Amino acid sequence: MPELRKDPVSQRWVIIATERAARPNDFKVEPQPIKGGFCPFCEGNEDKTPPEIMAYREKGTYQNQRGWRVRVVPNKFPALRIEGNLDKRGDGIYDMMNGIGAHEVIIESPKHVVSLTQLENGHVQEILWTYRDRLVDLKKDKRFTYGMLFKNVGAVAGASLEHSHTQLIVTPVVPITVDHEMRGAEEFYRYRNRCIFCDMVRQEIATGARIVIEQDNFISFEPFAARFPFETWILPKQHEAHFENAQKIEIEELAMVLKSTLAKLETALDSPPYNYILHTSPFNSGELEYYHWHIEIIPRLTKVAGFEWGTGYYINTVPPENAAEYLRKVDGKLTT
Amino acid sequence: MPELRKDPVSQRWVIIATERAARPNDFKVEPQPIKGGFCPFCEGNEDKTPPEIMAYREKGTYQNQRGWRVRVVPNKFPALRIEGNLDKRGDGIYDMMNGIGAHEVIIESPKHVVSLTQLENGHVQEILWTYRDRLVDLKKDKRFTYGMLFKNVGAVAGASLEHSHTQLIVTPVVPITVDHEMRGAEEFYRYRNRCIFCDMVRQEIATGARIVIEQDNFISFEPFAARFPFETWILPKQHEAHFENAQKIEIEELAMVLKSTLAKLETALDSPPYNYILHTSPFNSGELEYYHWHIEIIPRLTKVAGFEWGTGYYINTVPPENAAEYLRKVDGKLTT
Repeated sequence: MPELRKDPVSQRWVIIATERAARPNDFKVEPQPIKGGFCPFCEGNEDKTPPEIMAYREKGTYQNQRGWRVRVVPNKFPALRIEGNLDKRGDGIYDMMNGIGAHEVIIESPKHVVSLTQLENGHVQEILWTYRDRLVDLKKDKRFTYGMLFKNVGAVAGASLEHSHTQLIVTPVVPITVDHEMRGAEEFYRYRNRCIFCDMVRQEIATGARIVIEQDNFISFEPFAARFPFETWILPKQHEAHFENAQKIEIEELAMVLKSTLAKLETALDSPPYNYILHTSPFNSGELEYYHWHIEIIPRLTKVAGFEWGTGYYINTVPPENAAEYLRKVDGKLTT
Repeated sequence: MPELRKDPVSQRWVIIATERAARPNDFKVEPQPIKGGFCPFCEGNEDKTPPEIMAYREKGTYQNQRGWRVRVVPNKFPALRIEGNLDKRGDGIYDMMNGIGAHEVIIESPKHVVSLTQLENGHVQEILWTYRDRLVDLKKDKRFTYGMLFKNVGAVAGASLEHSHTQLIVTPVVPITVDHEMRGAEEFYRYRNRCIFCDMVRQEIATGARIVIEQDNFISFEPFAARFPFETWILPKQHEAHFENAQKIEIEELAMVLKSTLAKLETALDSPPYNYILHTSPFNSGELEYYHWHIEIIPRLTKVAGFEWGTGYYINTVPPENAAEYLRKVDGKLTT
């Protein structure tokens, strides 16, 4: 019997239907080949990107030259532009504004690595510090309300370049997904006077069935109403609304937990295409009692079809408890 | 300069950013080949599907045998099951229920056609009457609240079989996407005392820039805040909340407009993978003044990546006005 499960934050229902995994398929699934060739993100090609916004680099080296470890540049093909005014306006029943915002690329290594798991823990920490530095800097601009950090790995997940990188898009409006998530969390808070994510951490640790990794400050786990096979979330145990307020000791542990979780997924699923998204609070929202930053990792193993587009609900053929059991057994090379 | 546009119903923002179309790509896009082989939907293979629920068939032919024109069967690998009780229950902070519902397949032709555009207008009308008949029948079951009709064409759009078919999933909860759409429409109605979709029809006809086809009872057009290149909607001009209440004259014209719109997309985009979704009102919702049924067609030309997953917003590189201008010129073989 399939099971309907509701995500307690977004109120989104998921159908856990293991039987559907067996259905036949007219279509072959072929891996999408890499063209290779020139990579603008590799060391030595600094002049092929727009000028750098910031970099962590070796002493005595210069902007837009070799010697960097993590480098941030504007996206050469930006979805939003940094200069200008919003110029909000209407057209009959429709609303529009200029596409003002920021679209940056965080290049995670001078070498042509294709996964964050190929980097040392200390290097991953620097990537996370870069996330923080950029959010802190961009939130000073009063035109902007939200900074979304995300990663596309593999063509199926929407990547156009394979060199390991993260993108940051800063928008003048709070994203609708974030808005719904925050409203759901706020409703729970009004009713129970507790953070729903804190409750989730407690319940997941108590039952254990969906836990992948537990450390002092973080858990990684398969959410109760996982939309996709092997969807994995990372939550800090301590309540904190804003990622950029994470303690140093947390950033250090997060680097380890994130890297190890990704390594487990890569081993279990043969280096799948995936997205991860950092969910954090809007810039101007203060110390919210009801919202709790976290990372959502989505392996892109299945196609989103008409049902998901039409309903906003998902059909998942792998129960999260089974995925978690499997991932716990896989070696994630968790080391400090 | 990119432009931010808001969908007036869902309040979802879309970034229209033509510059991003030019970005380089490490990955080759290869069409996914068809395996071919046995098709359980073809005439003569009626015993390879679960027993039929209904069919339009020639006089003197029998259930589950040859002679049908349109045939409805339960999905052999259902996401939801028809028998049982919901048994709603909790598990700590989480909610769940049994996966009760209906999951049916409408096989659109006894021949192995891969597109609805290969069928005669009269045959397409029968497919639309089948949609109606199934909704009318299933809404009698008080366990169910919503019937979602949708079509997946091509592997990239989530199809597993290429023989032209539509799916119907009936759920015990109103889908979250429908709920958001209805709330948005209701808010507009409270403010203006008019249906927002009726306003949309009027404004689109008045400006004309996004119209693809206009007939007596329907328009097909590119929506102002199109999420995807060549996203196309079909709206009835007359206000009606429920698809199943469409007049006979409307069904006849819709067959023609739907077929011609799909033919234009197939010609313009070289038979792209696509989904279409019939958006209609929940079963028990009465004659709503604020909601208006419609069809949304989504060609699946671009990948949904981390930004879209995280924000619920979309980046579209083709302005809907350009797509509409192109589609108007393409021959859709619009005939009665």
